[in-house]
Amino acid sequence: MANLIDGKKIAAKVREELKSRIDKLKKKGITPGLGVVLVGDDPASISYVTGKERACAELGMFSRETRLPAEITQEELLALIASMNEDPQLHGILVQLPLPRHIDEQKIIMAIDPKKDVDGFHPVNAGKMLLGQDCYLPCTPNGILKLLEESGVETGGAEVVVLGRSNIVGKPVANLLFRKANPGNSTVTICHTATRDLKAHTLRADILIVAAGRARTVTGDMVKEGAVVIDVGVNRIPDDSKKRGYRLEGDVDFSSVSEKASLITPVPGGVGPMTITMLLFNTVAAAEKSV
Amino acid sequence: MANLIDGKKIAAKVREELKSRIDKLKKKGITPGLGVVLVGDDPASISYVTGKERACAELGMFSRETRLPAEITQEELLALIASMNEDPQLHGILVQLPLPRHIDEQKIIMAIDPKKDVDGFHPVNAGKMLLGQDCYLPCTPNGILKLLEESGVETGGAEVVVLGRSNIVGKPVANLLFRKANPGNSTVTICHTATRDLKAHTLRADILIVAAGRARTVTGDMVKEGAVVIDVGVNRIPDDSKKRGYRLEGDVDFSSVSEKASLITPVPGGVGPMTITMLLFNTVAAAEKSV
Repeated sequence: MANLIDGKKIAAKVREELKSRIDKLKKKGITPGLGVVLVGDDPASISYVTGKERACAELGMFSRETRLPAEITQEELLALIASMNEDPQLHGILVQLPLPRHIDEQKIIMAIDPKKDVDGFHPVNAGKMLLGQDCYLPCTPNGILKLLEESGVETGGAEVVVLGRSNIVGKPVANLLFRKANPGNSTVTICHTATRDLKAHTLRADILIVAAGRARTVTGDMVKEGAVVIDVGVNRIPDDSKKRGYRLEGDVDFSSVSEKASLITPVPGGVGPMTITMLLFNTVAAAEKSV
Repeated sequence: MANLIDGKKIAAKVREELKSRIDKLKKKGITPGLGVVLVGDDPASISYVTGKERACAELGMFSRETRLPAEITQEELLALIASMNEDPQLHGILVQLPLPRHIDEQKIIMAIDPKKDVDGFHPVNAGKMLLGQDCYLPCTPNGILKLLEESGVETGGAEVVVLGRSNIVGKPVANLLFRKANPGNSTVTICHTATRDLKAHTLRADILIVAAGRARTVTGDMVKEGAVVIDVGVNRIPDDSKKRGYRLEGDVDFSSVSEKASLITPVPGGVGPMTITMLLFNTVAAAEKSV
């Protein structure tokens, strides 16, 4: 029976370390500041943004939310970002995705000053990550590395299988784990919807990272005895027994997989708390660089 | 016994296609131009640069070489690149690497206008490649894709094993082959010096791409019957029977591996001719975008 990787606990530890860095900055008269842009009124986006702002407040950071109607033009949004790039109070800029269809997301992200791109979504940061240069690492992949590190999981030489090739999870976490670094130095296989024999790969994995976007993509029979399983999925499963009418599940069938794994992240409470924490981490780093 | 993938022949075909695009541009009064910067007098670098310039000339493209002494300062080099960025005659800029130690290579590459970065080495191009956006693809990996395509090798669903994680070959070719595209859609494993059981991986490969930087890293017993083997290595092996005192060998033990493979690239004459060709390809594309 697997032990749980407690994302909340590890996130709390990282935030504690951040707290002391923030206090140091404040003594120098700098409050790390995050500018948040929210376009439209998608409930999930509002909830994500609220969580991020609350986390900033808890650590004594500054955040400023600009909420815009879905009808805003691309030019207006670009002008807002240009002004945020110049604003010395804001060390990080976060544009909550997805944006309405009439807006070109790539253009908006390209407009963010890479020095303030605390999401790590700007191509220049993605490229620096790929090339092994100093940059802001994207939050979810970086949070996964931190979970592995804090749980004492040795990645060097490990067989890692990543399920999913999204820009925000699968691709970057694969690239971070095969680079010559610690954490890193893993032999990484990246699987996806075009993979022929998925089970043959997952059964080889010492560390299995599942970001497939579909509940129960991985079941116990697909996991090696003693594997470490990181479940990045967040699926809403209709459930009348819950007040809100659904429950959250990852991409992994928790009950059968936890019989095989040695360590596993729960959903919720695994990767999720780390994503926000690494956003704070990048914002504090940005503030430190501004000194 | 394997069939050869004839890199010279495929390169000639691609150059033929480029020739007609260049002729069209010339009718509009545009000659695709490549600016080449060579610092110092490393014989290998001189030979590479000469090959690239000759290839430009053969296709009726314009090239201008600026050769600088090894003692040049970083500031002088940055100033040169700034002027090349502004020069309308130059659609592509190539700084031959490596640079002398006192010069920060990353800074120099960052200074090249990404629109003229026909090597695909600028982080913003690397990032766009990673994120699946339109960009200049790095020449060797793109040449490998072209070799596979022209040889009728189906990459979708294939098991690809990449040996080596360099910034210019291993990392980009792995990322290009797992992306949702054609060529692409492969299940990719990236192996390197920290990989534990290399042979277990190479034996699984339908397509094996070897960029390890060491002769005879892969021998016949490590290759699956019928595999496609792409050898990116270029090693100088001392050989008194040769006039120049050495012969070229790839990273693959050709005689034993060609007994197992269905298709294999020779060294020389495999990947090499494609690298220069894709540089011309990017330069022509840059010239077309300038219209």
